[in-house]
Amino acid sequence: MRPIITLLSDFGVRDPYVAEMKGVILGICPEAVLVDISHEVEKFNVAVGAFLLASAVRFFPKGSIHVAVVDPGVGGPRRPLVIEAGCGYLVGPDNGLLALAAEREGLRGIYEIKPGRYTLRNISSTFHGRDVFAPAAAYLARGTPPDMLGVKVEAYTGVSAFKSLPGRGWAETVILYVDSFGNIITGLSWRDVDEAGFSSASKFKVSAGGHVFEALKASTYSDVGEGKLALIPYGSHGFMELAVNKGDAAALLKVKAGDKLTVKVTS
Amino acid sequence: MRPIITLLSDFGVRDPYVAEMKGVILGICPEAVLVDISHEVEKFNVAVGAFLLASAVRFFPKGSIHVAVVDPGVGGPRRPLVIEAGCGYLVGPDNGLLALAAEREGLRGIYEIKPGRYTLRNISSTFHGRDVFAPAAAYLARGTPPDMLGVKVEAYTGVSAFKSLPGRGWAETVILYVDSFGNIITGLSWRDVDEAGFSSASKFKVSAGGHVFEALKASTYSDVGEGKLALIPYGSHGFMELAVNKGDAAALLKVKAGDKLTVKVTS
Amino acid sequence: MRPIITLLSDFGVRDPYVAEMKGVILGICPEAVLVDISHEVEKFNVAVGAFLLASAVRFFPKGSIHVAVVDPGVGGPRRPLVIEAGCGYLVGPDNGLLALAAEREGLRGIYEIKPGRYTLRNISSTFHGRDVFAPAAAYLARGTPPDMLGVKVEAYTGVSAFKSLPGRGWAETVILYVDSFGNIITGLSWRDVDEAGFSSASKFKVSAGGHVFEALKASTYSDVGEGKLALIPYGSHGFMELAVNKGDAAALLKVKAGDKLTVKVTS
Repeated sequence: MRPIITLLSDFGVRDPYVAEMKGVILGICPEAVLVDISHEVEKFNVAVGAFLLASAVRFFPKGSIHVAVVDPGVGGPRRPLVIEAGCGYLVGPDNGLLALAAEREGLRGIYEIKPGRYTLRNISSTFHGRDVFAPAAAYLARGTPPDMLGVKVEAYTGVSAFKSLPGRGWAETVILYVDSFGNIITGLSWRDVDEAGFSSASKFKVSAGGHVFEALKASTYSDVGEGKLALIPYGSHGFMELAVNKGDAAALLKVKAGDKLTVKVTS
Repeated sequence: MRPIITLLSDFGVRDPYVAEMKGVILGICPEAVLVDISHEVEKFNVAVGAFLLASAVRFFPKGSIHVAVVDPGVGGPRRPLVIEAGCGYLVGPDNGLLALAAEREGLRGIYEIKPGRYTLRNISSTFHGRDVFAPAAAYLARGTPPDMLGVKVEAYTGVSAFKSLPGRGWAETVILYVDSFGNIITGLSWRDVDEAGFSSASKFKVSAGGHVFEALKASTYSDVGEGKLALIPYGSHGFMELAVNKGDAAALLKVKAGDKLTVKVTS
Repeated sequence: MRPIITLLSDFGVRDPYVAEMKGVILGICPEAVLVDISHEVEKFNVAVGAFLLASAVRFFPKGSIHVAVVDPGVGGPRRPLVIEAGCGYLVGPDNGLLALAAEREGLRGIYEIKPGRYTLRNISSTFHGRDVFAPAAAYLARGTPPDMLGVKVEAYTGVSAFKSLPGRGWAETVILYVDSFGNIITGLSWRDVDEAGFSSASKFKVSAGGHVFEALKASTYSDVGEGKLALIPYGSHGFMELAVNKGDAAALLKVKAGDKLTVKVTS
């Protein structure tokens, strides 16, 4: 079976950087299947990159190789890593970007990539995506074991995520992501939702930035009227979501990723 | 030969949704060749999605599988469909998105997808692209016949397109699409153009939104001076187009997809 | 080994044009591996397209086929070309777009594509990317020799690039590209940098548009404080770059591709 290599970055799609990574990969592993996860991560926003990576990897076949580059510290002391996890390999900088996916998928081993046979000969100081991470991914795809690419290490940089607080009939949480529809993915997992008893309620008050909004429980967008705020307890990412039917929930609530929310059952 | 699966949606390229669909497809059909048509369809704009899909599918090899998801009614009563057509299979929601391609390519059969062996086990209410349509496409690519994915049905939701009215020396039409150059693709087919006798004329008056513009017949953009409005009778989409040489025709005419135009021969 | 075909254009990713090219290619050469370089070249900006193409091709395996379409003169007298170069084949319009890559990679032969067996049957006047260049690339990928696609010619349109002037301790140059981070890629090659003696200096004055900025030499972004201007002598494109750590150098200097810069050593 042809190995799958996915790519995620904050490079955007205008610049040649993603293509250069792909050229390097195909030069080393011509049979690789390349799939873009996203290159429109907000620049330098490691937390959003970590969320997108963790969201996507679980839908790829086990054994896939996921390269992620949101790397403001490139060329500095931060280490280049390969993480072996239940889903396959995660390749990228040691700045928290890989941590959420590693935790969710099950950590199996951490390796620090060392310059040498398995990196490009001339490693630039500013583009390790192409010179270090792309070759590492391609050699992994060819079957090179990770301890050939570098040395086993014991720890990686985690993500200091806000811990959601589900109570009985209420919850405090943080916004993990706002998608391009304006849908709000909260930090409340399906389990948190069950703990808070949200699935047996029908109306909610959502507080954000000092304002309060009424939301109706819904299983999909069209369950509420157009322009109305829907609270979707079991969202498709594994988290509770807020959405506006044919509208933009984040614009309505004036919120963005990282902002806090409190949610209370009203009936 | 490796099966081709194309993807079209209004998901944009920032979110992980397209990648999640691709991961699901590759898990079921690892040898699929994945090609994006567009993920920048204006959100919820089924008519524009239908136009883009119909435009693109005719350039793909027969037997390709085309998944399209512009799906404001996801999780509601609208049915998930597989349409067998001359070009191959069309997979998506029954809201008109597939209709234009089906009509142009020749309808052969309609199937309503049923949850079961050929969908993901847990179908979310908000993301059938990943949970229903991607698996359906992947199983079709593996050779699963469409009547295994669901049940044969008799009808699908059509598109209530404005019917262009070509007269002798004039025509009334609607704008199907404005591309990123600002080129205007009208609803006048090459046959309509012949009926209106536009190819033997050289100057035209184009009316839009109460304003009148002069256009010169051209076979390509550079046939007219920079900044001038060109009327291209036989455009590359199979329709008459209006364009400005190195400029933006839609900005000049202040029009968008869905707006009406009248065109008259002046000489 | 499966042949690699890359695509670069100013078509954007919303329109169906890139997908139509890919459909045509896969119809002729189903085993081709398709990789996008960029479709977000500023519309009609041949110089930027040429820079992006030349930047990317050197990271692809030798023998790859690179199709590039920034083609304001489509349908006019400009010739459609195949250029054989050290890196493989370059396919596109004869307007300078292919010239920089051809020069850097080593020119081996120039061919003018002629309509016939190896183009689509009906060539539109406005979309040679799909009707001429995509089929040419696909036939080259199948092993069709370039002199079957057209006739050998002697010359192609070059790029009239501003020649950088490196002195001792100073240099005059032009901006080749501003990337999506706002990093400025100058026209000073690593050799120019050595000639100007920049690598043994530590502080610089950069003049642009009548304003003067202080820059500190750095090997990577994080070598300078956040918001500070860094001069990176050996940038990852093979040229000197200016960047702001976690900021936007082009916005700070108020410059864009094509603008002139002078750089002087101060210590």
